[in-house]
Amino acid sequence: MRNVLPKSIEALSEVLASLPGVGPKTANRLTFYLLSRSNDELAKFGLAFSSLKQNLTKCSVCQIVAETDPCGICSDTTRQVGKIAVVEEPLDVLALEKARFDGRYHVLGGQISPINNVSPEDLKINELIERLKGEEVKEVILATNPSLEGEATALYIDDRIKELIEAGKITKDIKVTRIARGLPVGGDLEYADELTLSRALEGRRSYN
Amino acid sequence: MRNVLPKSIEALSEVLASLPGVGPKTANRLTFYLLSRSNDELAKFGLAFSSLKQNLTKCSVCQIVAETDPCGICSDTTRQVGKIAVVEEPLDVLALEKARFDGRYHVLGGQISPINNVSPEDLKINELIERLKGEEVKEVILATNPSLEGEATALYIDDRIKELIEAGKITKDIKVTRIARGLPVGGDLEYADELTLSRALEGRRSYN
Repeated sequence: MRNVLPKSIEALSEVLASLPGVGPKTANRLTFYLLSRSNDELAKFGLAFSSLKQNLTKCSVCQIVAETDPCGICSDTTRQVGKIAVVEEPLDVLALEKARFDGRYHVLGGQISPINNVSPEDLKINELIERLKGEEVKEVILATNPSLEGEATALYIDDRIKELIEAGKITKDIKVTRIARGLPVGGDLEYADELTLSRALEGRRSYN
Repeated sequence: MRNVLPKSIEALSEVLASLPGVGPKTANRLTFYLLSRSNDELAKFGLAFSSLKQNLTKCSVCQIVAETDPCGICSDTTRQVGKIAVVEEPLDVLALEKARFDGRYHVLGGQISPINNVSPEDLKINELIERLKGEEVKEVILATNPSLEGEATALYIDDRIKELIEAGKITKDIKVTRIARGLPVGGDLEYADELTLSRALEGRRSYN
């Protein structure tokens, strides 16, 4: 095919097509949609891309991407300081914030996954252990994904913490919990898979 | 929800979420993916957005968005000058180019659609008529979409051209054709809708 499109259109299409989940056709469609936007807006768009990582740092406490170190959450004194939710990715923090979690976080940066060559050392697990030694932590909530790898990661961290408690290296007052697996709210028993359903049975609670 | 994400991340998420077909969750996911790209790449991305409409013009002949006027296609002397494919949008030109169409184009800029308040005057139909008067056109191929509005647009243009031929305003040597409607290649007769199938029967041809 001869190049019939102007270079600037091709360039933006290529950029968009390099995003995950965006194919060449969608990229073309988005580019032609963007032609209908004003130059001012496009300049604003461009700036949002080029300045994305300026002024960004990593919180040395919870490992989240942030503008300040420590981040806004870690330095927020109105939160429950003793509760730490351990999550895989920064987006999980966002999800828990929406669910009004009021403790603090620890972002692992992924999940243990031998198939993808991710071992425990690649995650921020040692940093979590250091926090447990240094901070007054009452509860560690393992909020990794309820997937195979997420469960394995949670189990691994639980084991590590138990070992350290037995060795007397961190206080045994630290409670380790795992977020509940069960039926999603609004879900349908009939369509639930057997594993979810058996977890929902296991995790049953009495009304009080 | 308190704002837990850095401003630059929020800004890019907002930009991406304003694109058609991109929801807030996808926008967040794309933004975090982009954090893994280098600053150089992000600058390149930004430039692709901000410079999209710089150096862009419209071809005064075929109405396509282009870098030069007339565009590369209209000024390409190796093409069959007498064949004009009438399409709705620039992306349709791209599709026909992939199908190795070797004539020239006329981009209407949309389709006649009373429901969306688009009347024939809003399209570049008069510009097409002017071309038929001025250029040596042998065939007008109506390649609007095979949708309700696309068919109506094609019919309208066919009518207009016939009227002008009868009035002696353009030469009667101009042939007006419509692209074939039928079964898509690789398709399945069993699953074809009845309208497509009846068009495929109507348009049947003998092997020769």
